[in-house]
Amino acid sequence: MDYGRAFQAMRHAAGADWDRYARHAFVEGLRDGSLPRAAFLHYLRQDYVFLIHFSRAWALGIVKAGTLDEMQACSATVNALLQEEMALHVSLCGEAGIPEAELLATEERSENAAYTRFVMDCGFSGDFPRLLAALAPCVMGYGEIGARLAAEKTSEAYADWIATYGGDDYQGLCQSVGALLDAGLERRYGPDYQTLPVWDDLCATFAQATRLEVGFWQMGLTP
Amino acid sequence: MDYGRAFQAMRHAAGADWDRYARHAFVEGLRDGSLPRAAFLHYLRQDYVFLIHFSRAWALGIVKAGTLDEMQACSATVNALLQEEMALHVSLCGEAGIPEAELLATEERSENAAYTRFVMDCGFSGDFPRLLAALAPCVMGYGEIGARLAAEKTSEAYADWIATYGGDDYQGLCQSVGALLDAGLERRYGPDYQTLPVWDDLCATFAQATRLEVGFWQMGLTP
Amino acid sequence: MDYGRAFQAMRHAAGADWDRYARHAFVEGLRDGSLPRAAFLHYLRQDYVFLIHFSRAWALGIVKAGTLDEMQACSATVNALLQEEMALHVSLCGEAGIPEAELLATEERSENAAYTRFVMDCGFSGDFPRLLAALAPCVMGYGEIGARLAAEKTSEAYADWIATYGGDDYQGLCQSVGALLDAGLERRYGPDYQTLPVWDDLCATFAQATRLEVGFWQMGLTP
Amino acid sequence: MDYGRAFQAMRHAAGADWDRYARHAFVEGLRDGSLPRAAFLHYLRQDYVFLIHFSRAWALGIVKAGTLDEMQACSATVNALLQEEMALHVSLCGEAGIPEAELLATEERSENAAYTRFVMDCGFSGDFPRLLAALAPCVMGYGEIGARLAAEKTSEAYADWIATYGGDDYQGLCQSVGALLDAGLERRYGPDYQTLPVWDDLCATFAQATRLEVGFWQMGLTP
Repeated sequence: MDYGRAFQAMRHAAGADWDRYARHAFVEGLRDGSLPRAAFLHYLRQDYVFLIHFSRAWALGIVKAGTLDEMQACSATVNALLQEEMALHVSLCGEAGIPEAELLATEERSENAAYTRFVMDCGFSGDFPRLLAALAPCVMGYGEIGARLAAEKTSEAYADWIATYGGDDYQGLCQSVGALLDAGLERRYGPDYQTLPVWDDLCATFAQATRLEVGFWQMGLTP
Repeated sequence: MDYGRAFQAMRHAAGADWDRYARHAFVEGLRDGSLPRAAFLHYLRQDYVFLIHFSRAWALGIVKAGTLDEMQACSATVNALLQEEMALHVSLCGEAGIPEAELLATEERSENAAYTRFVMDCGFSGDFPRLLAALAPCVMGYGEIGARLAAEKTSEAYADWIATYGGDDYQGLCQSVGALLDAGLERRYGPDYQTLPVWDDLCATFAQATRLEVGFWQMGLTP
Repeated sequence: MDYGRAFQAMRHAAGADWDRYARHAFVEGLRDGSLPRAAFLHYLRQDYVFLIHFSRAWALGIVKAGTLDEMQACSATVNALLQEEMALHVSLCGEAGIPEAELLATEERSENAAYTRFVMDCGFSGDFPRLLAALAPCVMGYGEIGARLAAEKTSEAYADWIATYGGDDYQGLCQSVGALLDAGLERRYGPDYQTLPVWDDLCATFAQATRLEVGFWQMGLTP
Repeated sequence: MDYGRAFQAMRHAAGADWDRYARHAFVEGLRDGSLPRAAFLHYLRQDYVFLIHFSRAWALGIVKAGTLDEMQACSATVNALLQEEMALHVSLCGEAGIPEAELLATEERSENAAYTRFVMDCGFSGDFPRLLAALAPCVMGYGEIGARLAAEKTSEAYADWIATYGGDDYQGLCQSVGALLDAGLERRYGPDYQTLPVWDDLCATFAQATRLEVGFWQMGLTP
């Protein structure tokens, strides 16, 4: 998995927090099938609320973009999320026994709100790269987890979930977002952006977002 | 043309400002073909910059929407603007003799910035209906002008432009946006929203946006 | 304690969530002195980070205000927070043995970010009353807790904290914010605003903010 | 006048646009007293509306600041504007024969909205330095104009206006804002920020804001 230069460096800078997220007990439970079904269904319900705010964050990317390319990249993501992913999610939940009315009535958990509103505020207070730095742990983290679990899974219990995030479509999205981040940084800060103070701020944003993702998995374990 | 109940009432409340916009000399010049070609090309160049910020404003609508329906409606508009309209505009300008590089280098005129940034700030400071109230004079105004000119035009000089805005696709968009505004108001403020103080604020926003559109046409006359 | 009509109704609508917040174990520990000192110091450190984002939220109120009165009320609060409260907080922490450098280095806990970023996003996506509805549980909740603990405390261990929030200055602030909310609602939605659908949204915002405040107290118990 | 390194470089990069603003006919009319009184009163009325949105822009600075210092600097400016300058402006207008009720009823001119909403959107879409780059032409431009006119005026007709902006208080504010901009840039982008691509964007923002200020003066001449 190669999701670009900036992601690689931010992931490295996040240190142990990254593994706490990418190798969380929830993730390992998906891998070996030990995750209780109730926890997974609870996660799916919260993920529905998550996707709404995640779409809003990508829409904010359109607002803050500096070029038509950046706008189009964000718009394609928003559109895929709102016109396809949401419907897919509703359909998956339906198969899992959660009717749409129940999804709509989900009470958002604090750990869920914590991540998405942090992302929104990063986008609101910072520039385009800062928004992407806050989004990256989610986008690419799921890609990394999906790819690893596709190779390492010892159970078929959550094979559908793993196939989604480990599959070519999602891996391609991760590469696109990585390229968007790399190009966005170079376009604004030049090729040596990792030597600038703003880089440390971006890494801090990425790391805090990573810790908030740990909280999201943790929430998944406690329906 | 029926673009909904709220638009009809806001248009009426805007009084003479509406006619100054919808029957501006630039518009009449499109109708009878008397608009100088240089003015039209100048308008097309500025409109390219306009479409970028107009797309941003609709993206802000996704951010501020209150329901999935509202998000999807705004997202469909953003996507149509960024993935289709921009390409169409570039193509039309190319046919008219303006290469894309020249479009990209267009220096935004103040009258252009005035309208789009006013809309962005309405969206930023107000709620979803306020953003729509600031967008409505542009969306539906072009629809009304296009429909009238399709019926009243005395020259084929600008028949393509008139066919675009007077055509079924664009008229359908105006009806959708009108319905989005009506439903958005009722969903938040109930059926009697026109009796609330917030209605006067919305009408004031609509009227100010209308005056800024007058400025945009006026700019079109002075390349 | 009379913090106004809207607060009273929102507090009532929040149901049991309000008591979970206003009578949380952390609060009872302040009342009877049983709160471990380490938990209190941990809370003070997090509260430093909180105050920064709380100030940002009130600054957003200036941006979103509809009248000069509203702007001035928010500005007075921001100024008091940034020019006085922050210095007071640093001084109190210093007396408690936390040097300023340590405050600056505090790693923001997720439960802390969750509340403040939720408030920021409410302000960002909604209108002025929605921002106030998200801020109200914090402002008036501390007022209610301070006033009750001033009357019911059985220990002097946290008498300073109780005196701050139960004292006249803070109680006066709560009344001002309550009046700002009442007037802001009437100015926009008329006297019968509690019959409008937007009222339910505002109550939902208030209730979610209240639950996020429960999480903040809970965090205080787990340094 | 030394308003700092970044301002000096941005002013230089704005080229002839800067002189079109700082030596506009409106300004020369203040200098030699030839500005019609009606134009000045018209300008004062519009300036009242301007100050409201200018205060909002500085409040947005608090929201987007990266350090407590930056927050406090912006907050002090907002507070001075809302608690003092507005009252001073109302008083000056009263002396000039414009009652407060008339100020409140001023219809905002498009050239006025164009500048302030452009600033708001820069702050909204960009980072803290971008907001300051959009504010700088106004803040420091008035400082430069005031200082020059204090030295070069040939009439006492507008001596009060000149004394305000040429005086020590306002000159000190310009130096503070210049230092805030310099420090804000270095803190984020390092000492060589003028070699980065983002610098070109900041200069473009500054130049566009300067052109919008030209429009504001021009509006002043046409009551």
